[in-house]
Amino acid sequence: MPRARATMRDVANAAGVSLATVSRVLNQVGSVTPETRELVERTIKELGLPGPVPRGGTPKPVDGAVFVRCPYVLTDYFGLIVSSIAETLDRHGRQLVLNAGEAAQHDPVVSSLASQRDIGGAILILPPEPSEDLVRLSSRRFPFVVVDPRTALARDIPSVSAAHHSGARQLTAHLTELGHTRIGVIAGPREWLAADARLSGHAAALADAGILPDPSLVRHDHPTTEHGYRAAALLLDLDPRPTALVAFNDKAAIGALQAASDRGLNVPGDLSIAGFDDLDLSRATTPQLTTVRQPLQEMGRMAVSLLIRLLDRHALEALHVELATELIIRTSTAPPLR
Amino acid sequence: MPRARATMRDVANAAGVSLATVSRVLNQVGSVTPETRELVERTIKELGLPGPVPRGGTPKPVDGAVFVRCPYVLTDYFGLIVSSIAETLDRHGRQLVLNAGEAAQHDPVVSSLASQRDIGGAILILPPEPSEDLVRLSSRRFPFVVVDPRTALARDIPSVSAAHHSGARQLTAHLTELGHTRIGVIAGPREWLAADARLSGHAAALADAGILPDPSLVRHDHPTTEHGYRAAALLLDLDPRPTALVAFNDKAAIGALQAASDRGLNVPGDLSIAGFDDLDLSRATTPQLTTVRQPLQEMGRMAVSLLIRLLDRHALEALHVELATELIIRTSTAPPLR
Repeated sequence: MPRARATMRDVANAAGVSLATVSRVLNQVGSVTPETRELVERTIKELGLPGPVPRGGTPKPVDGAVFVRCPYVLTDYFGLIVSSIAETLDRHGRQLVLNAGEAAQHDPVVSSLASQRDIGGAILILPPEPSEDLVRLSSRRFPFVVVDPRTALARDIPSVSAAHHSGARQLTAHLTELGHTRIGVIAGPREWLAADARLSGHAAALADAGILPDPSLVRHDHPTTEHGYRAAALLLDLDPRPTALVAFNDKAAIGALQAASDRGLNVPGDLSIAGFDDLDLSRATTPQLTTVRQPLQEMGRMAVSLLIRLLDRHALEALHVELATELIIRTSTAPPLR
Repeated sequence: MPRARATMRDVANAAGVSLATVSRVLNQVGSVTPETRELVERTIKELGLPGPVPRGGTPKPVDGAVFVRCPYVLTDYFGLIVSSIAETLDRHGRQLVLNAGEAAQHDPVVSSLASQRDIGGAILILPPEPSEDLVRLSSRRFPFVVVDPRTALARDIPSVSAAHHSGARQLTAHLTELGHTRIGVIAGPREWLAADARLSGHAAALADAGILPDPSLVRHDHPTTEHGYRAAALLLDLDPRPTALVAFNDKAAIGALQAASDRGLNVPGDLSIAGFDDLDLSRATTPQLTTVRQPLQEMGRMAVSLLIRLLDRHALEALHVELATELIIRTSTAPPLR
């Protein structure tokens, strides 16, 4: 797919200078007159091909650019992943072509990636595309890595995600150890892989504590403060009331804190509330949120590392990488009132 | 600077097909056999030049790519600006090459932008470079726009920023109208243009209320929660204690809320606290923060619009664009105790 590059010899011949001169210009070492430098630079342009790669420099070759698709607003969650991808690609001397923002959800770009001549590979973050599209892209041997897949991926599509199941299991185990047995859950959309994995981690921790899961204690909704508020309100109206709420997203947990405050419930005295993600937000609340830290920056670094190995045609053995999460206990959780 | 593109006629001649066939392939309308489509696509590749632009399609020409430099982590502040730039460039069919993350602060990329053949223009967000570097880039006639300049810019370098002065003036006027006369300020670094403009807006509002500014009530520091906490602690130890604190950044305001809470001060009963930026964070606190909304998304859109006009060689009259801010009154501010 990549276009041929001009060699240093092509440039030297066309410009009528020595190979050593071309090398000096490209590597910016040794002395070259401004006129000669200009001649060499103009010749490279006139050849109409990507120029030769300077030795040991940062080539940023256009034909090795990496397309990063994150069709969401770059908030404290997605922005952190993209920042870390950007820093890591930069360290590898790779150019990053960004496709981001909510409007990008409707870009049909994934189907045309394999035929974009200036793109060498891609990182797709929480891709909204149906998995058939990803399978089709993969069958065209286009190198790409998925971060945080929304649905289960074919075995041979490399992906990086957080350990949703074990993170949620640790969180709920923390609550059962405190003595909670009636725990409301504010879960993500039912069709999301992460929501499903977190719910199963929650159920596993309940099972460990000998507690039967109760479907009436689980609400599925989008991970926003508004939806968290609404879901919490419904759960807090149950009789008997849950003594703890787990929101599988910090923003939803903040909605839950507000719903509790509106009802005059003290957190954590009357009600424990926990989140998931460990955004900056989770330290801004009073009380600060107990939550599960997702390794967002490491997810970005790992995605680049897998992609670079694909581009270098190295074998990948573990195609689905799951990175450990960490339980962060703060002050929004406490033993239930007896 | 941009390389020539192959024309549709070049492709038709080289492939031995009609112009109409090339057009059908490029615009993906009308019927073409798979073999013919493949022939045309292969020919475009073999020409080794950017292909012709399909009519009304999204050309994403590499030679018109826009370099976006945001050498900071893409948090809820910078991420929102970059998302909006990404969406707007996409709408213009321009490719976005991203340089982001804190490590990017040390990239010497600005000095080489004008000689990167695949980059048509740039948007530089809060550039850490000394203004001489920007003047040098401008003197090479490279088209770029600065978002939120850190220092005063030469008159002919286009920039977009928020109305820092008037935003801060409105905020402090809100406090003086409530009856506050002793207002502590947690300001940004002294050398930042925005910090200076906000402080001058604050001083203007004090003057309007007939209050003399008191330098001992102003602390300069970096806009983080930790620094906000420390600055607030120092201000709250003054005797007499200020009855209100203005932090020129929401994260610093959250630090101030924590310092107040540590001293058993009720906000807003004993102490009013206000922020600046209107991040999501400012609605997560208890009480929710009174703050000044910066039009982050509009800043991104405006930057793209100015850059596209530069690229299209349209004249720009107002080179320094300032976008209105908005005072958002929530529950962290109230009249002082008498």
